Amino acid sequence: MTPTLQEIVEDTNTPQGRVFAYFIQSLIVLSLIAFSIETLPNLSPAVRSGLTTFEYVSVAIFTVEYLLRTFIATSKTGYIFSFFGILDLLAILPFYVGLSVDLRSLRAFRLLRLFRIMKLVRYSAAMRRFHVALTIAKEELILFVCVTAILLFLAAVGIHHFESQAQPEQFGSIFHCLWWAVVTLTTVGYGDAYPITVGGRVFTFAILLVGLGVISVPAGLVASALAKARQLEDQERLESPVEKP
Amino acid sequence: MTPTLQEIVEDTNTPQGRVFAYFIQSLIVLSLIAFSIETLPNLSPAVRSGLTTFEYVSVAIFTVEYLLRTFIATSKTGYIFSFFGILDLLAILPFYVGLSVDLRSLRAFRLLRLFRIMKLVRYSAAMRRFHVALTIAKEELILFVCVTAILLFLAAVGIHHFESQAQPEQFGSIFHCLWWAVVTLTTVGYGDAYPITVGGRVFTFAILLVGLGVISVPAGLVASALAKARQLEDQERLESPVEKP
Amino acid sequence: MTPTLQEIVEDTNTPQGRVFAYFIQSLIVLSLIAFSIETLPNLSPAVRSGLTTFEYVSVAIFTVEYLLRTFIATSKTGYIFSFFGILDLLAILPFYVGLSVDLRSLRAFRLLRLFRIMKLVRYSAAMRRFHVALTIAKEELILFVCVTAILLFLAAVGIHHFESQAQPEQFGSIFHCLWWAVVTLTTVGYGDAYPITVGGRVFTFAILLVGLGVISVPAGLVASALAKARQLEDQERLESPVEKP
Amino acid sequence: MTPTLQEIVEDTNTPQGRVFAYFIQSLIVLSLIAFSIETLPNLSPAVRSGLTTFEYVSVAIFTVEYLLRTFIATSKTGYIFSFFGILDLLAILPFYVGLSVDLRSLRAFRLLRLFRIMKLVRYSAAMRRFHVALTIAKEELILFVCVTAILLFLAAVGIHHFESQAQPEQFGSIFHCLWWAVVTLTTVGYGDAYPITVGGRVFTFAILLVGLGVISVPAGLVASALAKARQLEDQERLESPVEKP
Repeated sequence: MTPTLQEIVEDTNTPQGRVFAYFIQSLIVLSLIAFSIETLPNLSPAVRSGLTTFEYVSVAIFTVEYLLRTFIATSKTGYIFSFFGILDLLAILPFYVGLSVDLRSLRAFRLLRLFRIMKLVRYSAAMRRFHVALTIAKEELILFVCVTAILLFLAAVGIHHFESQAQPEQFGSIFHCLWWAVVTLTTVGYGDAYPITVGGRVFTFAILLVGLGVISVPAGLVASALAKARQLEDQERLESPVEKP
Repeated sequence: MTPTLQEIVEDTNTPQGRVFAYFIQSLIVLSLIAFSIETLPNLSPAVRSGLTTFEYVSVAIFTVEYLLRTFIATSKTGYIFSFFGILDLLAILPFYVGLSVDLRSLRAFRLLRLFRIMKLVRYSAAMRRFHVALTIAKEELILFVCVTAILLFLAAVGIHHFESQAQPEQFGSIFHCLWWAVVTLTTVGYGDAYPITVGGRVFTFAILLVGLGVISVPAGLVASALAKARQLEDQERLESPVEKP
Repeated sequence: MTPTLQEIVEDTNTPQGRVFAYFIQSLIVLSLIAFSIETLPNLSPAVRSGLTTFEYVSVAIFTVEYLLRTFIATSKTGYIFSFFGILDLLAILPFYVGLSVDLRSLRAFRLLRLFRIMKLVRYSAAMRRFHVALTIAKEELILFVCVTAILLFLAAVGIHHFESQAQPEQFGSIFHCLWWAVVTLTTVGYGDAYPITVGGRVFTFAILLVGLGVISVPAGLVASALAKARQLEDQERLESPVEKP
Repeated sequence: MTPTLQEIVEDTNTPQGRVFAYFIQSLIVLSLIAFSIETLPNLSPAVRSGLTTFEYVSVAIFTVEYLLRTFIATSKTGYIFSFFGILDLLAILPFYVGLSVDLRSLRAFRLLRLFRIMKLVRYSAAMRRFHVALTIAKEELILFVCVTAILLFLAAVGIHHFESQAQPEQFGSIFHCLWWAVVTLTTVGYGDAYPITVGGRVFTFAILLVGLGVISVPAGLVASALAKARQLEDQERLESPVEKP
């Protein structure tokens, strides 16, 4: 029995559907690699034209896929304005618009289409758990983002007070200092700007002591929320099949 | 029915109260942005005078707001010496004092007024939970701050022993070494000072092995205390409405 | 009663077996140290020839040990193709092949043989717990690796958009930018490449805010999975000896 | 009623005992600060001689304290060979020995005497909990130290393979590479050594992906073990006063 067009494009349970899905996913990955290679300097004209041809072909296939999905969908507008529908359009639109304007960076949006792979490899359970975890920890996370923003601003103002005289190049304005605050409190520490005055160093120490406690908490929040989400899931599994007296 | 003055200024449940609160909050954010822009070098005189005018206007509004709040409060001294009362005063005082002295950095205290926004967006639940979590983990956190301080000092003394001969510029005194210890144990690692002797490097490795374990624990403590605070809250919610037999 | 050859080589419960095991383990550690010393420049010919002799002797012993283990094993092919069998072969093979080709780096594989020490010091309980923990957190960990990969690529494309014009040396291609993304999002921050444009810095801030949340979660996942593994173990211990009514 | 000498020196519950304890603790902190100031270059002779005098006085007091504690102790050898007894001796011994040899760095051992403050401020509950937590997580922590050591060595061998040709200065020997591995895997990233070859960068990415997962787990382990220790404590408190049926 040959599967219908709908079963091939939308259903990943039929063999043909899986082949179609893997083909599209591989094409996305390949087109992203091609996009990366294009940015290399000193490419030979042969390679460059090969990459352009590949881009033409892949956009053509993505366009056909997009039209197919629109054609098949039970609700056409429903698909077009759905999350995946917009992603699919964003993956090809920059090409058509970009024939006149340079919108190459937008091609990276194709990357987001990879999220569809989640459906394929059936990681929906883990994703649902993350969704539950984010819902549990939402309030705390927003609070932390606010506290982090306030802390970064305070750090910037403080270091500006101490270092703006000594290093006008690196700490000349609050905006320069904000960059320092981000690089320092995330512990990246590039080394392009660091305090040299005694006051600035003592202030850095104090703000780090507070800041590290604040900035690294969200990860712990997500992890413990995840543990709780898993626990809730286990409870549901226990409770749903058995009838409670 | 027109709301009373008190309802507008203090109550964020009435529509007028919300408008007032949002207006003040936006003005705080705008005045902080203006403050940041003022620190930029090479501003045109037009922009600079515009910013000064904006500062005059916003301080005027904050002053009126402060007087209003004092006037309305049931206990006047109660408000003036409350946490938010002092913050509100700190937000305008530097301006008046600073007409003679340069106290511009203190303007950053306005930032703290943003905490009032918490009341507005009703994140008091999450904040209360944090408060509970900090109470739970208080002893351990203080202990960790002590251990961290001891560790930093030990690291500084150790590296001073190994590197002071080889790099007198960077590791000349214990205080210089303390700066290195802070930058290293927080894993910021600017790269302005690093050991070059074999002894110093082995010592750095050893102190990092211990230090990372110590310094990153507080975040985990806060996260697990938060999880416990949430659990306690759930228990209370379960227990309070239902009567226990 | 003298132990059989099998008891010496494979059993670490007999005194002779323990001596044999410790001897082999020490030889592995010593041969790794010798390997490290060999890479030092400016070694005197005497030291160099001493190290070569030591290498000959240790490979000879490892070869005898390998033949012994093969000889003793109840299933010869079973041992040869087992995990430890392959490791044991990899520890000596580079020497014989490398007499013609330079395969010295492969000698590092001997390190993996150290895993056998786990058997010796009886940390199998802790290892089993890790195994259980990894099984529990497997789905989430794979999901995080995918999300991390996507995030790194997005970060690289974004920074390429902002910085490729300003710093063609450091951010010239997506591949250069990927290196920056890895160094930044892991918070290593060597300082060999960092954004200097305003757009690039704002983008770095945004991607760090998201990225730190994502990248540091796996550690929390493993830790909480470990806690759960320990809990499962405790339950089993409670349940297994006592009969439930 | 005047307290006995023993009550003053050993008991921190009497007012006199507390005064004595605080006095000694303050003297320790002051002598450490004096030690730090002594390392500053360009000190005036007056300051230098003042510091020396202070050092003489504080060592004299510590010596008297040490003799007192020995004299008072019910078991003299018991005190001398106890943990705190050895610390107390180490705090003064370097001075007497160092009159001939330079052992100034050893003065930092006085720092360890500060642990006695724990007794004073009654943080013994939190410390006991840490002790329980470390006992719970001991096996996993040792396992992690082993895995970390193996990982660092593997990272060093790998980067040596890729970078020793390109940067003989920074990656010339396995020992140089070990330093790089420590600085990178702890995410300190000073920027004194970083890979520049494509192979080295890809390898760094791979080892960071594994390494971050491994190196940051111990902190999570300690945090979750602490949570369990607190839970055990709560259980004991619940169980001990009430008789179980």
